Amino acid sequence: MPILGNGFELGGYTRPDSTGFNDLPAHVWPSTARRRGADEPRPGSVEVGGVSLTEIAEEYGTPVFVVDEADFRSRCRAIAEAFRGSGNVHYASKAFLSKAIARWVREEGLHLDVASGNEMAVALAADFPAADMTFHGNNKSRSELSDAVSAGVGRIVLDSRSELRRLSEVAAEAGVVQDVLVRVKPGVEAHTHEFIATAHEDQKFGFSIASGSALAAADAVEADPNLRLVGLHCHIGSQIVDSDGFILAAERVFGVVEQLVARHGVEISEHFTILDLGGGFGIAYTAGEQPLEVAPLADEILRAVEELAQRIGIPTPHVAVEPGRAIVGPSMVTVYEVGTLKDVTVDDGVTRRYLSVDGGMSDNIRPALYRSVYDGRVVNREVSGSRIPTRVVGKHCESGDILINDAAYPDDIVEGDLFALAATGAYCYAMASRYNMLTRPPVVSVKDGAATQILRRETVQDLLSLECETPR
Amino acid sequence: MPILGNGFELGGYTRPDSTGFNDLPAHVWPSTARRRGADEPRPGSVEVGGVSLTEIAEEYGTPVFVVDEADFRSRCRAIAEAFRGSGNVHYASKAFLSKAIARWVREEGLHLDVASGNEMAVALAADFPAADMTFHGNNKSRSELSDAVSAGVGRIVLDSRSELRRLSEVAAEAGVVQDVLVRVKPGVEAHTHEFIATAHEDQKFGFSIASGSALAAADAVEADPNLRLVGLHCHIGSQIVDSDGFILAAERVFGVVEQLVARHGVEISEHFTILDLGGGFGIAYTAGEQPLEVAPLADEILRAVEELAQRIGIPTPHVAVEPGRAIVGPSMVTVYEVGTLKDVTVDDGVTRRYLSVDGGMSDNIRPALYRSVYDGRVVNREVSGSRIPTRVVGKHCESGDILINDAAYPDDIVEGDLFALAATGAYCYAMASRYNMLTRPPVVSVKDGAATQILRRETVQDLLSLECETPR
Repeated sequence: MPILGNGFELGGYTRPDSTGFNDLPAHVWPSTARRRGADEPRPGSVEVGGVSLTEIAEEYGTPVFVVDEADFRSRCRAIAEAFRGSGNVHYASKAFLSKAIARWVREEGLHLDVASGNEMAVALAADFPAADMTFHGNNKSRSELSDAVSAGVGRIVLDSRSELRRLSEVAAEAGVVQDVLVRVKPGVEAHTHEFIATAHEDQKFGFSIASGSALAAADAVEADPNLRLVGLHCHIGSQIVDSDGFILAAERVFGVVEQLVARHGVEISEHFTILDLGGGFGIAYTAGEQPLEVAPLADEILRAVEELAQRIGIPTPHVAVEPGRAIVGPSMVTVYEVGTLKDVTVDDGVTRRYLSVDGGMSDNIRPALYRSVYDGRVVNREVSGSRIPTRVVGKHCESGDILINDAAYPDDIVEGDLFALAATGAYCYAMASRYNMLTRPPVVSVKDGAATQILRRETVQDLLSLECETPR
Repeated sequence: MPILGNGFELGGYTRPDSTGFNDLPAHVWPSTARRRGADEPRPGSVEVGGVSLTEIAEEYGTPVFVVDEADFRSRCRAIAEAFRGSGNVHYASKAFLSKAIARWVREEGLHLDVASGNEMAVALAADFPAADMTFHGNNKSRSELSDAVSAGVGRIVLDSRSELRRLSEVAAEAGVVQDVLVRVKPGVEAHTHEFIATAHEDQKFGFSIASGSALAAADAVEADPNLRLVGLHCHIGSQIVDSDGFILAAERVFGVVEQLVARHGVEISEHFTILDLGGGFGIAYTAGEQPLEVAPLADEILRAVEELAQRIGIPTPHVAVEPGRAIVGPSMVTVYEVGTLKDVTVDDGVTRRYLSVDGGMSDNIRPALYRSVYDGRVVNREVSGSRIPTRVVGKHCESGDILINDAAYPDDIVEGDLFALAATGAYCYAMASRYNMLTRPPVVSVKDGAATQILRRETVQDLLSLECETPR
């Protein structure tokens, strides 16, 4: 297995950033996270939601995910306010879903995106109303479509002509007219401050605007008695911090609407009540990064959409967005226990400390998969040593099992210390594996000084639960 | 999320290889795989172990992993024969482990490598004898060490000084003298036909030979009354097809042994009865690749080790190896159903077909994680269309969810066809996630015309089984 490159080169070690190692960058850590003072219980430990992470580790063991309920809910509210209504904000379950999460999303009035029949099933198990769900996916099966229609899912995002036919049949059999969005490819791919604009997009999702297939699909839905077009959808990327890409995408989507109006008259705009611009709102994973500022972004997008609608003489559609990471990402941290520490001399004579924790690529595949970078801190006490080149690795039997590739940490971190990664709410638990038969950590929610386990730790019995006792 | 590069560039499409698309490259597919003739039941379908994959898909649904028991066992035997005894071959559980697999390994007389307490627990649940297990890991916890010692694990591979101290304490408490190997870093990193030789290795595993810490660790074990040194271990890479890297690593390990002999006399060689050269035997994932030929490799290594032992005047140690992928990799295939087909015009005007299947990065993360390439075939019938640029994608809500990035497939593949990837036995099921709440596929073993489910499909109930019903 390859050792991650991750921008790292021998000889080029990370220098300590200017913040102290005991500080918690407020834009990266959950909003209620703070380090306790010397005169408080468990002095020097980090608390989240009023609960010391040391206490959580003692009660639930490590590794453990801790989610700050107040932080989660406040992000829901901020995005809902920015986009003028909680119904315009669809929490993307794929980032992280559990029944508790579905309830919080519901209580905040947000809608829910699901991308599989099973995501829908888990949300339904938490009594999330199907009418407030939007169903995504490039390859929804007939049974998923049938289950969604039967459950009364609010909107299904059509992604191909064959799905359009399948869904029409399924809706006809069920005797319902299903609301749908058509997913289009605007030819915009955005990431952080940059975006690429092309005519085409070489990916599996959506109907091409450039080729005319988006327009043709919308036409086909219009002509289908079992389907009702309620809007168009696009998704341009991830970790975006600027509005430019979204606005260009909206312009291109309006190009399709303009053609629809030209063909069918302005009444067609009754079928374009939703412009769903997808997700991709960026968060800060490290002190040096800045998260997207949602309120000004929303203002810019909403103003642009209003102008676009006026230009072609139709009512302004609702602008829907699908944040997942931007809500749950910064709300969660992963707490590990420090194990083996090993100083390794590398070929240029520098020493790198390998700091092993008791989890790794099974609970966070993102550094290995996307070369993602995280902010890590000791959370059971303050440390004060000199900074030395450090790599944080997991306990998997694989050299690529790296959590933080290149850091400069104090040299007085010891075995048994608690070490936490911030902003692990999105795509960590959701993509967790059982590699090396490591079991999924529990997820504990914290709020107002109380901790509640929302997902328990997997056990060896869970590992064995799929075994079939085969006759010999 | 980034779209995988994977060596792929716009305009540079893969040309069909010279083999027919209905052929199954024998060095890639399980040994019993063959395409049925026109006069057989389910004509044109691929059978493995005498069972048509169409029949398996009908009975167990898709996606489904199918493992060829005869192929698995024959690879065990071939490697055992090449290395002069099944006890010298330790199957690496991390590649794929279930109770049935542990039983097969046992019945073939092989030993077992485990890399976590839970891998050990699953093997023990299948009555695999602890004495024939070797326990690996860079960050074994005290409780894992304690469980291993209590269970009577044959050998523990020491990976750090702090672990050495922990294990010594644990063994003392248990009143046993524990056999250990010391893992050393030979400064050799091998992959396919190439290897890199350096003085140091910038990774988490092992004790450095160059710095003297390997020798010091062996000395410390020698001096510890609770531990007994039985050999040295190293691991140089993965997907290796040449012996050169192994032989260089063996030479460097013998350098340590020579120093031990110089310090302690030739009696020390009684504590060097095992030279464990680790895993990394390469397999062929595609028609154009060649697997490592085990028998000549073993001959070369064994001859070299014999000479090295003679040169320093000690008895030749047993050479142990740890194949995982080389046993289970080619024994398994994953069968998917073809869903949405979408032709996408890319920026140079070429059309690429996106072929969606009903699984993806949740059941096979390797293309996204390592840019691995697989051999895919339609297995329910023969196809005969013209070859067109095709990308095989999964059903996850992520554009990087790609299984085969750049292929040239017949244009008459249709929805509902069964499409299988070969050589998916290693690190696919073992690294499977529940991303998008997709559940793990079942694993079905086939042999002599009969199919037996060894792991059942996960259900929505399994997804919900970790939920804690929190008081509101």
